[in-house]
Amino acid sequence: MARPKQERAVRTKQLILHAAAEVFDECGYAGTSITRILERAGSTQGAMYFHFKSKEDLARAVIVNQAEGLKLPKDPAGLQQLVDITLHLAHELQRNVLLRAGVRLAVEQEESGLNEYSVYEWWIGQFRRELDVARERGELLPEVDEAEFAGVLVASFTGTQVMSQVATRRTDLPERIASLWRYLLPGLAPGEVRERLVVGVERGETPV
Amino acid sequence: MARPKQERAVRTKQLILHAAAEVFDECGYAGTSITRILERAGSTQGAMYFHFKSKEDLARAVIVNQAEGLKLPKDPAGLQQLVDITLHLAHELQRNVLLRAGVRLAVEQEESGLNEYSVYEWWIGQFRRELDVARERGELLPEVDEAEFAGVLVASFTGTQVMSQVATRRTDLPERIASLWRYLLPGLAPGEVRERLVVGVERGETPV
Repeated sequence: MARPKQERAVRTKQLILHAAAEVFDECGYAGTSITRILERAGSTQGAMYFHFKSKEDLARAVIVNQAEGLKLPKDPAGLQQLVDITLHLAHELQRNVLLRAGVRLAVEQEESGLNEYSVYEWWIGQFRRELDVARERGELLPEVDEAEFAGVLVASFTGTQVMSQVATRRTDLPERIASLWRYLLPGLAPGEVRERLVVGVERGETPV
Repeated sequence: MARPKQERAVRTKQLILHAAAEVFDECGYAGTSITRILERAGSTQGAMYFHFKSKEDLARAVIVNQAEGLKLPKDPAGLQQLVDITLHLAHELQRNVLLRAGVRLAVEQEESGLNEYSVYEWWIGQFRRELDVARERGELLPEVDEAEFAGVLVASFTGTQVMSQVATRRTDLPERIASLWRYLLPGLAPGEVRERLVVGVERGETPV
């Protein structure tokens, strides 16, 4: 049996979340007001408070749902997929407002005082999963600690996108991520595995 | 001949800059007011406007002067010095307010709209200089592009400190920087050079 009321509630929640992402992306945490989000969503205060208690609550939702609806490369498996995911994210940050706002709010957390580390852990988990596959496929050097490397990769990606944002509004982010891999791969994979990998910016351009 | 008026002006400027750093460090760009900075400095609006035109101007000064007074390791030369500098910075970020505020404002530039990339270029230049020394000493792999690696290192350091701030208020930053080096060094230096390098958190604890 269809449940139209519940469906409508889910739709409204999504609408408000995406309107919040748009405003946070443009104005940051301090510069965003609930009024502006409601105007953008074409929604009422009552509808919003049913789903989100406060601006802080909305910001947290944007941070933790930043990857919602994101389609990440699933093929091929292993190290090439990990490389492809980071290059895909580099492109996606240029056009996906929810991801961009979530990343901005995660980086600028001193501003909001949210202290929401879970989204970094989520990304570490995503990367870790592919590193585990790479390990099974014999693509990693014996001295690599998969959990540690996943943390290093999330941190390096985060700083790279911060600098690319200031320098070129992220236009050069794919090139910067390719540069990062150039120096991370020798510590991660043996030479014969690296020879087979493709680390070009075009790896992020293909629709998933 | 002494010039007491000029000396007083320089002292006042420093006083206001450091007060601004303290307030920006605590409250971020949006949360900081000129009034609060003047209260902290025990200074007047007239004195401030003689040196800084606006809050934006003050924030820019904190960003570009973030390394003022910072004593970085100068011995030994080459790759060990580069490693030592990053570990020293990891410790320094825990206690040096001007550096911390400058880094925070540089990372949160979407908030202020400052678009001040020069401080990243300055750090790239600092790291690059030591990489050039390392190259002369035969410590780098032939395929390393010193300018590119310097950019990768600044970006990776930046993201690492963002995550460490959220996770532990930077208490674990030295360990995280040591992890970063574990995966960057194989792409940077030949095995025999890496064997001689010490990449322990204690490298950042020694006073310079």
